[in-house]
Amino acid sequence: MLDLCLLGTGGMMPLPYRWLTSLMLRCNGSSLLIDAGEGTQIAIKEKGWSFNPIDVICITHFHGDHIGGLPGLLLTIGNSDRKEPITIIGPKGIEKVVKQLRVIAPELPFELKFIELTHKGETIKIKDYTIEAFKVNHNITCYGYNIIIERQGKFIVEKAIENDIPKSLWSRLQKGEVLELEGRRYTPDLVLGEKRKGLKVTYCTDTRPTDAIEAFAKDADLFICEGMYGEQDKQNKAKEYKHMTFLEAANLAHKANVNELWLTHFSPSLVRPQEYLKDILPIFKNAVVGKDGMSKMLAFEED
Amino acid sequence: MLDLCLLGTGGMMPLPYRWLTSLMLRCNGSSLLIDAGEGTQIAIKEKGWSFNPIDVICITHFHGDHIGGLPGLLLTIGNSDRKEPITIIGPKGIEKVVKQLRVIAPELPFELKFIELTHKGETIKIKDYTIEAFKVNHNITCYGYNIIIERQGKFIVEKAIENDIPKSLWSRLQKGEVLELEGRRYTPDLVLGEKRKGLKVTYCTDTRPTDAIEAFAKDADLFICEGMYGEQDKQNKAKEYKHMTFLEAANLAHKANVNELWLTHFSPSLVRPQEYLKDILPIFKNAVVGKDGMSKMLAFEED
Repeated sequence: MLDLCLLGTGGMMPLPYRWLTSLMLRCNGSSLLIDAGEGTQIAIKEKGWSFNPIDVICITHFHGDHIGGLPGLLLTIGNSDRKEPITIIGPKGIEKVVKQLRVIAPELPFELKFIELTHKGETIKIKDYTIEAFKVNHNITCYGYNIIIERQGKFIVEKAIENDIPKSLWSRLQKGEVLELEGRRYTPDLVLGEKRKGLKVTYCTDTRPTDAIEAFAKDADLFICEGMYGEQDKQNKAKEYKHMTFLEAANLAHKANVNELWLTHFSPSLVRPQEYLKDILPIFKNAVVGKDGMSKMLAFEED
Repeated sequence: MLDLCLLGTGGMMPLPYRWLTSLMLRCNGSSLLIDAGEGTQIAIKEKGWSFNPIDVICITHFHGDHIGGLPGLLLTIGNSDRKEPITIIGPKGIEKVVKQLRVIAPELPFELKFIELTHKGETIKIKDYTIEAFKVNHNITCYGYNIIIERQGKFIVEKAIENDIPKSLWSRLQKGEVLELEGRRYTPDLVLGEKRKGLKVTYCTDTRPTDAIEAFAKDADLFICEGMYGEQDKQNKAKEYKHMTFLEAANLAHKANVNELWLTHFSPSLVRPQEYLKDILPIFKNAVVGKDGMSKMLAFEED
């Protein structure tokens, strides 16, 4: 089960009625945040979600509207009695950027670990999250992220018996442990069936449409994608500033065959994004115009 | 005339219903801001005041809740078509701190000028503002600020005639210009009477009460002072973290003989600061518990 909240839907600058785009996910007591622009900590408080369980912060790129709130957020996480390390993932240079921003947050009661992305695509596993980072196409280095919750196969009694697995090990193998007993090594695949479909959320902002996004978003349960401009006459502006229109996001969603599309990262000039939804429904019908604080719970399919 | 707005009233961290403490002043088309914590730019937008005329930003100290919003604010001022330089005043090291924070705001369409405070008290004149910075007593170097609008004397025709001032120079001398004509130097005091009472606003947060604050706040029209704690049993906490209680702020206001006191910079634990006002009215009756967006126009006294 994966619980998520689109904390804000703004791009470029925070507005009184629109926080900057950021996504928070929760799974089995661990939280993951993507981007932390100015005010993200207030959006989290408004939603009522906790700071303490934030184990991972993924940063898409180093523009202020995606990382400006990080020092304040870290201070507030520190005030939530957090002691365990936090992993920060971002483009090459993330450690240096965060170090500079911490000029105003030098003392934290937890350690920061950094993972710097240097390839076009990278996979990182932390807690129950499988994080796929993929390079997108903005005017500075920028990454999109897949957050995947994998789901193992069912426990098959017949298989356990056939493989001669002592009954005392069954439940631990089912939980995914690898065990040794009397010189024999036992792996979960000895008692489990085929891997089942997990959950996948794809998040990308600040980019032109690319083949890589289409490939990484393939069959996602939820595709959260920027729609900087709703107006069709802003296509050239989108190209110039390396952003996307609603139409381009809808085309990506269609080609990637995702289940649902949430649009976000609206230009401050786009006052009523809702008005442009009708234009894209013929291309992708399961599209939603994002709203601050919008949340959803994704559950594994019934067997 | 001096127009001012208390943009926020929070201390330590921004809350959904309370912006961080910051003050904006406007005088003759030029704006001055004191402190810029996370979200200050949103508070300015909410108030509806303009970014473009901000000529001066005074920073009290380098804790995140007083400066964390600066990079985002500078970007937004940049988007307001500002081209003229902005002066940033703050404790020694301000230039380095801002340089580090600008890792996420490297390109601005205007120049930043810095004035680093190194003395216990310093006076700076920019536009119509006379800015007095005075050191206060916090756990890191911190300054309070007086913002003074001076008022020259009245134009006295008799004095101008007596001093043999050519009539063609009268209005320019009245406006404060120093002129030279046919080898003679003309100064405004040759046509003006005694200086009249101007306007004075004193702003101090993040400090214990000190004699210097009392001296600098003397006879201020408005004294904006931190009241981190309203509860009387938090006196020890105030001492430990180098903050003030409502009572201490009221005592300062009384001793400094100010006209009006606004309390601000409330602890996140102080949910209903209004409830503690009654405790301090016997000490200083013209006290007000600050609210986000509260504003006031100060006018020169009638002659």
